[in-house]
Amino acid sequence: MTDTTTTAPTSVHTLVAEVMGTFILVFGVFSTAIFVPADSHGTKLLTVALVHGMALAAGIYAFGRISGGHFNPAVTVGLAIAGRFAWKSAPTYIVAQIVGGVLASLAVLLIGASNPTFNIGNSFAAVSNGAQGDFSITSTLVIEIIATAVFVLVILGATAVSQAAARLAPLAISLALTFLVLLALPVSNASLNPARSIASAIFGGSIALGNLWVFIVAPLIGAVAAGLIYRFTFDNKGVLTTG
Amino acid sequence: MTDTTTTAPTSVHTLVAEVMGTFILVFGVFSTAIFVPADSHGTKLLTVALVHGMALAAGIYAFGRISGGHFNPAVTVGLAIAGRFAWKSAPTYIVAQIVGGVLASLAVLLIGASNPTFNIGNSFAAVSNGAQGDFSITSTLVIEIIATAVFVLVILGATAVSQAAARLAPLAISLALTFLVLLALPVSNASLNPARSIASAIFGGSIALGNLWVFIVAPLIGAVAAGLIYRFTFDNKGVLTTG
Amino acid sequence: MTDTTTTAPTSVHTLVAEVMGTFILVFGVFSTAIFVPADSHGTKLLTVALVHGMALAAGIYAFGRISGGHFNPAVTVGLAIAGRFAWKSAPTYIVAQIVGGVLASLAVLLIGASNPTFNIGNSFAAVSNGAQGDFSITSTLVIEIIATAVFVLVILGATAVSQAAARLAPLAISLALTFLVLLALPVSNASLNPARSIASAIFGGSIALGNLWVFIVAPLIGAVAAGLIYRFTFDNKGVLTTG
Amino acid sequence: MTDTTTTAPTSVHTLVAEVMGTFILVFGVFSTAIFVPADSHGTKLLTVALVHGMALAAGIYAFGRISGGHFNPAVTVGLAIAGRFAWKSAPTYIVAQIVGGVLASLAVLLIGASNPTFNIGNSFAAVSNGAQGDFSITSTLVIEIIATAVFVLVILGATAVSQAAARLAPLAISLALTFLVLLALPVSNASLNPARSIASAIFGGSIALGNLWVFIVAPLIGAVAAGLIYRFTFDNKGVLTTG
Repeated sequence: MTDTTTTAPTSVHTLVAEVMGTFILVFGVFSTAIFVPADSHGTKLLTVALVHGMALAAGIYAFGRISGGHFNPAVTVGLAIAGRFAWKSAPTYIVAQIVGGVLASLAVLLIGASNPTFNIGNSFAAVSNGAQGDFSITSTLVIEIIATAVFVLVILGATAVSQAAARLAPLAISLALTFLVLLALPVSNASLNPARSIASAIFGGSIALGNLWVFIVAPLIGAVAAGLIYRFTFDNKGVLTTG
Repeated sequence: MTDTTTTAPTSVHTLVAEVMGTFILVFGVFSTAIFVPADSHGTKLLTVALVHGMALAAGIYAFGRISGGHFNPAVTVGLAIAGRFAWKSAPTYIVAQIVGGVLASLAVLLIGASNPTFNIGNSFAAVSNGAQGDFSITSTLVIEIIATAVFVLVILGATAVSQAAARLAPLAISLALTFLVLLALPVSNASLNPARSIASAIFGGSIALGNLWVFIVAPLIGAVAAGLIYRFTFDNKGVLTTG
Repeated sequence: MTDTTTTAPTSVHTLVAEVMGTFILVFGVFSTAIFVPADSHGTKLLTVALVHGMALAAGIYAFGRISGGHFNPAVTVGLAIAGRFAWKSAPTYIVAQIVGGVLASLAVLLIGASNPTFNIGNSFAAVSNGAQGDFSITSTLVIEIIATAVFVLVILGATAVSQAAARLAPLAISLALTFLVLLALPVSNASLNPARSIASAIFGGSIALGNLWVFIVAPLIGAVAAGLIYRFTFDNKGVLTTG
Repeated sequence: MTDTTTTAPTSVHTLVAEVMGTFILVFGVFSTAIFVPADSHGTKLLTVALVHGMALAAGIYAFGRISGGHFNPAVTVGLAIAGRFAWKSAPTYIVAQIVGGVLASLAVLLIGASNPTFNIGNSFAAVSNGAQGDFSITSTLVIEIIATAVFVLVILGATAVSQAAARLAPLAISLALTFLVLLALPVSNASLNPARSIASAIFGGSIALGNLWVFIVAPLIGAVAAGLIYRFTFDNKGVLTTG
């Protein structure tokens, strides 16, 4: 893919695909997180985590063949660090991802507008990223760095194979995001994706905005770590079959 | 596929396949929605959404090779708009889908008949589409349009690849329907499919019937939008691999 | 496959594979149904249904290449009716499946023996098939016939394709069983499989034994119906691609 | 694969892959088991079991092409018994797996440190393996032996096919681990993996350490049994297609 993306100009189609894919992912997450009734028994946690994975898989199957299906600035940066995506395309990809995320928030606003129990500030504050319960902001940094690093390593590994094998990559990436969100939700409300964090923080009030830097920096640190680990350890290494 | 479907007459087999596949989908949804005990913790929401996706995948794996596995008038229309299905086959497909949905309702009636807590009107009213809780009918329009558009875009994207890669399409489509139903259930009781809406409304009483037009019109608008987006943006565009 | 299975003698290996695969399926179902704590919110329903599908997929991936992975007399009969399995191998397959199911019950007995809250008769009565709650035995007949017919149609459809495409069949079959069990659990406690019904009824007391005929006859009727529908409608029919 | 692994030296890359893959698996399990709020309705059981499967799939898709994706001493031993992995590479693999598990515990400690409700001894005791509720240590031996044997048989079966078909093996293995953990959690707190048991016991206090031998011995017995069954029954046997 490197040659193709290095030489091909970033077309409008790839940017539309990144906008729409990020829209699907973020709309799925915010819509369930805000409109599914809360409960104290963990079912909503499972629901929101499954939606992350399923929405991402849906987006990749819909638009992955157009843009590669990043839908996340940390993924774009991690792939670029690993030498699997052209740096010069990164800025427009990231802008497209942020636009997609914000459009998703606006769609949630449109749907919630008729609902008297929906309140823009409170609802988006509740889905914004930040330390949950008894956790510190340091704990959120650690979990976001680890989870994003694992996420990007799975993407790099699952797509570092033949075209044929890579067809399963969206499922692998979907399962990875689901379980990583299950880990991160109780600690940091699960970002792993600066575009998702920006999309909630800008409607979530001053506390959400104040925390936002963590959920831009930590996922990017994790992604850079994953890209470096991949590049200097596993890239082009001999392949053993499973089992 | 376009050439094949344009020249081949719609055989009885394809219509039987559409009847049976829509039966499986709608029977699965109504049976769990009516007979699984309600709870206040979201487990039933998750169960009903998972059944949507799993029943659709089962139907496509069983009958997709015969009819293409639409099982939904919005899908048929979306594929036709995108130039991926012959318009002249659409009317019989849609009739077959409605027949399959109504047969599913009759099967639910047959099973429920022995159960004194089952009441035709109340049970089908409860699974009919309409604004839920504090949402307005406008919110249901918006969620149905967006969710159906995303659903049809995933179908178009997941099948716009080589035969080999398209084998995974049923899984992608299943995951997409599951998460979109999770979003739409709390707002509109999740149609995305006029055949499913008709099948419940005709047994669900006057309110259900009064709302029915929304759940015919909104999914079709979403499907048309998806077909147009696909046709004028992504169709036959250059393909980048994932990652 | 027909030629191969018609000419090849049923080897001991295929029977061992059917014993072990049925053991895995039935052990998974009974173990979760008996040892996972009950709750009133549907989570256990979802857990037991997911175990059905996951255990079946595991068994097929482990032993499907040896025996075809039936693990269910209704599947064996349905495949034979459809002309996809040699009738002369059916009796030994069915015996092997019943042996596997009974061994699974014995393993559950061994694990439960140390647990004072475990009672053979009560525990196996609770997992035996029969009309649940307010449903009649007629309702259980209807749901078992429909669910088994759908299950066998999915198996026939998902494997009626090229070798390459059939690799996904275990996933399709797993999803189908999961959602069909979700439908059938609240009505009949979900058999779809005479071997599973026999394995619980022989330890479940007189009521379970008295109901057993239904859960041998109904799944077989469903399987025969599916085999006939397939043989006279879809077998060797022209193939359209999904979408 | 046998030839390749017998002749190729165990490279540093394979060991790094085993460390990281085991880290992902164990970190996923402990993090959700400790930080997801407990409930009495089985949702957490389902969540923790799903994380086992999803984290393992993610690890295999990320690193399986490098090391084969064992992440579990029982798997390494079972593959070696079956003649599918070189014995001489086993010791370093097992050390790498234990290191990965312990690093995962340290990461959980780092995240939990800020949380006043987190207590090293109590939290790790709660996720350590041992007889649950009314079960005896004998019951834990039986379930661990059976579950690990089934797990290793699925791995051996799912990878005993062509390279192309083996691409689905991680999904099969993931589904198998998920349902086996659902069975084993209520009885033994679900090990199936000595590296996972060691990683919790060394931080879990004297009772956890006292039980540890069971959760090293029982999974290994199960793995050896599976390797022998495979080697003397199914290895290189004729292949029938599913259905």
